[in-house]
Amino acid sequence: MQNQQILLIQRPIGTPGPESWSYITSVAAEPSENEVLIKTAYLSIDPAMRGWMNDSKSYIKPVELGQVMRALGIGEVIKSNSSYFKVGDWVSASVGVQQYAVLPEKEVSKIDVSGFEAPAYLGTLGMSGLTAYFGILDTGAPVSGETVVVSGAAGAVGSVVGQIAKIKGCKVIGIAGGKDKCDYVVNELGFDACIDYKEGSLRKNLKEVCPDGVDVYFDNVGGDILDTLLTLINKKARIVICGAISQYNATALQGPKNYLSLLVNRAKMEGIVVFDNYKRYPEAIEQMKIWIKEGKLNANYQVEEGGVAGFPAVLDALFAGKNTGKLVLKID
Amino acid sequence: MQNQQILLIQRPIGTPGPESWSYITSVAAEPSENEVLIKTAYLSIDPAMRGWMNDSKSYIKPVELGQVMRALGIGEVIKSNSSYFKVGDWVSASVGVQQYAVLPEKEVSKIDVSGFEAPAYLGTLGMSGLTAYFGILDTGAPVSGETVVVSGAAGAVGSVVGQIAKIKGCKVIGIAGGKDKCDYVVNELGFDACIDYKEGSLRKNLKEVCPDGVDVYFDNVGGDILDTLLTLINKKARIVICGAISQYNATALQGPKNYLSLLVNRAKMEGIVVFDNYKRYPEAIEQMKIWIKEGKLNANYQVEEGGVAGFPAVLDALFAGKNTGKLVLKID
Repeated sequence: MQNQQILLIQRPIGTPGPESWSYITSVAAEPSENEVLIKTAYLSIDPAMRGWMNDSKSYIKPVELGQVMRALGIGEVIKSNSSYFKVGDWVSASVGVQQYAVLPEKEVSKIDVSGFEAPAYLGTLGMSGLTAYFGILDTGAPVSGETVVVSGAAGAVGSVVGQIAKIKGCKVIGIAGGKDKCDYVVNELGFDACIDYKEGSLRKNLKEVCPDGVDVYFDNVGGDILDTLLTLINKKARIVICGAISQYNATALQGPKNYLSLLVNRAKMEGIVVFDNYKRYPEAIEQMKIWIKEGKLNANYQVEEGGVAGFPAVLDALFAGKNTGKLVLKID
Repeated sequence: MQNQQILLIQRPIGTPGPESWSYITSVAAEPSENEVLIKTAYLSIDPAMRGWMNDSKSYIKPVELGQVMRALGIGEVIKSNSSYFKVGDWVSASVGVQQYAVLPEKEVSKIDVSGFEAPAYLGTLGMSGLTAYFGILDTGAPVSGETVVVSGAAGAVGSVVGQIAKIKGCKVIGIAGGKDKCDYVVNELGFDACIDYKEGSLRKNLKEVCPDGVDVYFDNVGGDILDTLLTLINKKARIVICGAISQYNATALQGPKNYLSLLVNRAKMEGIVVFDNYKRYPEAIEQMKIWIKEGKLNANYQVEEGGVAGFPAVLDALFAGKNTGKLVLKID
């Protein structure tokens, strides 16, 4: 059985170009004992992918050169040598950018796709939603009536963060790039306001909609936006460091020069990695399913066609900020 | 009665020069109802003074131009119109850089100088010691066996932080400038090691003495040293932001470009201001007095002569890193 794959063949400096990738067709492997063969349906396209391409210490080891590019995905079990999975089961796993993946049973999770469209399991009911859930609730710890600001507000994580903060009774302000995204964040996701960071003075515009300052800032972008928020935080504010998409392709890193605002305001800045909460994934997913059914949480995603060969272009689109909601690549 | 005073007359850009100060002699004021007249004995010389000279939002309002420079001090009540204080009482207060201060009773605290030399009440038993106590215990929260690194290790706050971390059973590494300070930190204060940041590679030298990484970093300096520590922290590390002496006179601020290490390591960076703990000052001072008497805590300070007129030179010496332990200016 032919298996289209994308391999990482060169570590990028700055934005990844076509020279980083090799598109090949190989023969799909067969599952051994306690393994399953998965036919990929959808792949999750994530900012974190850029970090996985670097050869540096991180929360997960780098993708090795010459290997299939790492990607989370969902699909169907089509062969099983595991007592836990049967043919026809829907599963999520780190399948990689390929049509068929053989994985040990312990690296695969069954998903119940009844009642929800499958791509939701890569977004709100997948890693992005779980990142948002634990990041805003445990680390941001917003209290009803507080002001919460979220950057990357139209993105996979930010969109969920803001909606959860609204559910918790907060005033929620998004930051996004462009009028269309901002309209979407306010009209479809129900944020109180959304500031287009590409138009006018971000600081002035934020001050206008946050007259009482900022209690929680959930940062997906880093760079100048993080620095601006540091000048607007209240005493005992919490800054959640979830990502820094402005920095992932940068060749010279930009630190938050206003970090001493943490001192002045007795505030904290804390990093999060979703995997630390794996024991609590089921409770979080159950809660988010309830909110979706109640109409309080919009499980938004954007599916791109193109299959395995379309991966480099879709990743480019992510870093160019062209998606609204979770970006998903359809494989099957 | 003549009163020598130092006024702030110009806000500095970068390092304060003589043009910032005016040395004058005026007539000491008389205390009104519920006020006392204090004769200053010693002034506390603090890195925070540089921030007070700026006209920007901080945890305390700036010193106004033409006013006496702010300074914490200790002295004796020589006239009292307060029922709480009598002539001869020793007190601590924000007296300013002057020989005599009139203050309302509610801004003055009585101190018990029996058993300890008076300048200790500006150092280990004063704001520096309290900053160290609450910063390391509440925010750093070190656990026995963990590795704690402290910059400005020979300074007023750092010297106390490291000694408390030793009392709590940690491995404690100092960072200081020059061999004399490092020898002092190890031999007099009992740190496990002290790295001279002016000699060789700080990162390499720290890695050698911290083979298990860094669990708590107490930062008094900011700049490159903070950035280096960010590359050495462990999972769930705590970085206490107490000050940034490398940045106070800088005209272009340097942010910690390695801050994404907080994400990779699920670590936090938190700012502290001692005043938030004022209700617990007595308990902290009692505990530190016990440790001093038990010989576990060295209440180190360095007294400079020079009186009010000597203030600008002593402040220069502080920023040039010339002191070991708490720097105190003798007035009386």
